[in-house]
Amino acid sequence: MTTTEAGATAPCESEQGGHEHATYGYHKQKDEHLKRLRRIEGQIRGLQRMVDEDTYCIDILTQVSASTKALQSFALQLLEEHLRHCVADAAVKGGAEIDAKVEEATKAIGRLLRT
Amino acid sequence: MTTTEAGATAPCESEQGGHEHATYGYHKQKDEHLKRLRRIEGQIRGLQRMVDEDTYCIDILTQVSASTKALQSFALQLLEEHLRHCVADAAVKGGAEIDAKVEEATKAIGRLLRT
Amino acid sequence: MTTTEAGATAPCESEQGGHEHATYGYHKQKDEHLKRLRRIEGQIRGLQRMVDEDTYCIDILTQVSASTKALQSFALQLLEEHLRHCVADAAVKGGAEIDAKVEEATKAIGRLLRT
Amino acid sequence: MTTTEAGATAPCESEQGGHEHATYGYHKQKDEHLKRLRRIEGQIRGLQRMVDEDTYCIDILTQVSASTKALQSFALQLLEEHLRHCVADAAVKGGAEIDAKVEEATKAIGRLLRT
Repeated sequence: MTTTEAGATAPCESEQGGHEHATYGYHKQKDEHLKRLRRIEGQIRGLQRMVDEDTYCIDILTQVSASTKALQSFALQLLEEHLRHCVADAAVKGGAEIDAKVEEATKAIGRLLRT
Repeated sequence: MTTTEAGATAPCESEQGGHEHATYGYHKQKDEHLKRLRRIEGQIRGLQRMVDEDTYCIDILTQVSASTKALQSFALQLLEEHLRHCVADAAVKGGAEIDAKVEEATKAIGRLLRT
Repeated sequence: MTTTEAGATAPCESEQGGHEHATYGYHKQKDEHLKRLRRIEGQIRGLQRMVDEDTYCIDILTQVSASTKALQSFALQLLEEHLRHCVADAAVKGGAEIDAKVEEATKAIGRLLRT
Repeated sequence: MTTTEAGATAPCESEQGGHEHATYGYHKQKDEHLKRLRRIEGQIRGLQRMVDEDTYCIDILTQVSASTKALQSFALQLLEEHLRHCVADAAVKGGAEIDAKVEEATKAIGRLLRT
């Protein structure tokens, strides 16, 4: 199982676990996630073009709001899959893991709220 | 003067106006803005790599929070320059323009708050 | 069991369920929640006093930020208990309920994010 | 002129200044502001009632989102009046005051964004 950068808990294994990489809840939506992120990357490059072409500040701010909204929408999708798979799996397994998973998820939500 | 995409008011001219492009408050910080935006673009590409490599969901969410924070920090910087130049200029000129500029800026802040 | 105002799913019963009122995850922290909410109520009354006494706008905005932060902190606490009890219980029971609970929780998080 | 709690700049005087209290931009909307805040106070008391009556967590979270939105809407209204009066006045007067006012307003917006 791979180690996580900052994860306080053991990452949840996939049902077909035991491979080189653990695969998490978002595995099946991987292509959709990558497509969303490439679209957001395009928005950020659009922002660079707007700054470069001296676009009116307010129009740039509107585009920043759209990019932030798209990032949060991606985060919500990821969070939903995390709750459905990793958190639910920990609940089924029982034991102390569910508390750690819920605390970890709540902290992540708190970080999203504070930005 | 260039036209704006969505601007409800006439974009504010620079003091040295009359060139091909109107240059707004953020003109002098252009390089700094572009550098910030390129760093955010790098963060978004980092997110794609994380999804691609099946990184643990919570670690991805942490990186999303960092990117959103960076975008909002860019927006605040832009807004400060807009208030200092465009809005303050409208106030000095007098007339109805200041009301329109303030309303427009407030709406932009509202859009940032709601994301 | 009581019906919910807007809840899309059946509210989760407490382990000692079957009483007149269903009691949810936050039951044990009820006193703490009420204390937090009374403190927030005090902050809102403080805001009324500030407006009434012509306090400087920026100082009022600082107090608004503090109240919003306190409300979000309360929401996070409630959400954590909801995930730990209602969502985890649905996972243990199995069946379709877990999907509905996770979707419902994600939508609630989305509403918090968008304010 | 009254002193401010945390204000980094001199509070802006009203055009008819020199009275016991400085009156800021939001003076004319005072009644409207107080009405809004009393409505928010009612929402917070409603939250206490919901907790007390063991209302379903998700329904409480929906009400928290509504209260936060109402607080931010109040903040935006106040900010708009502050920009229209205090910031615009500083711009007209000229000198260093406008920079301080804009920096102060931007910091207040940053605090609102981060909650």
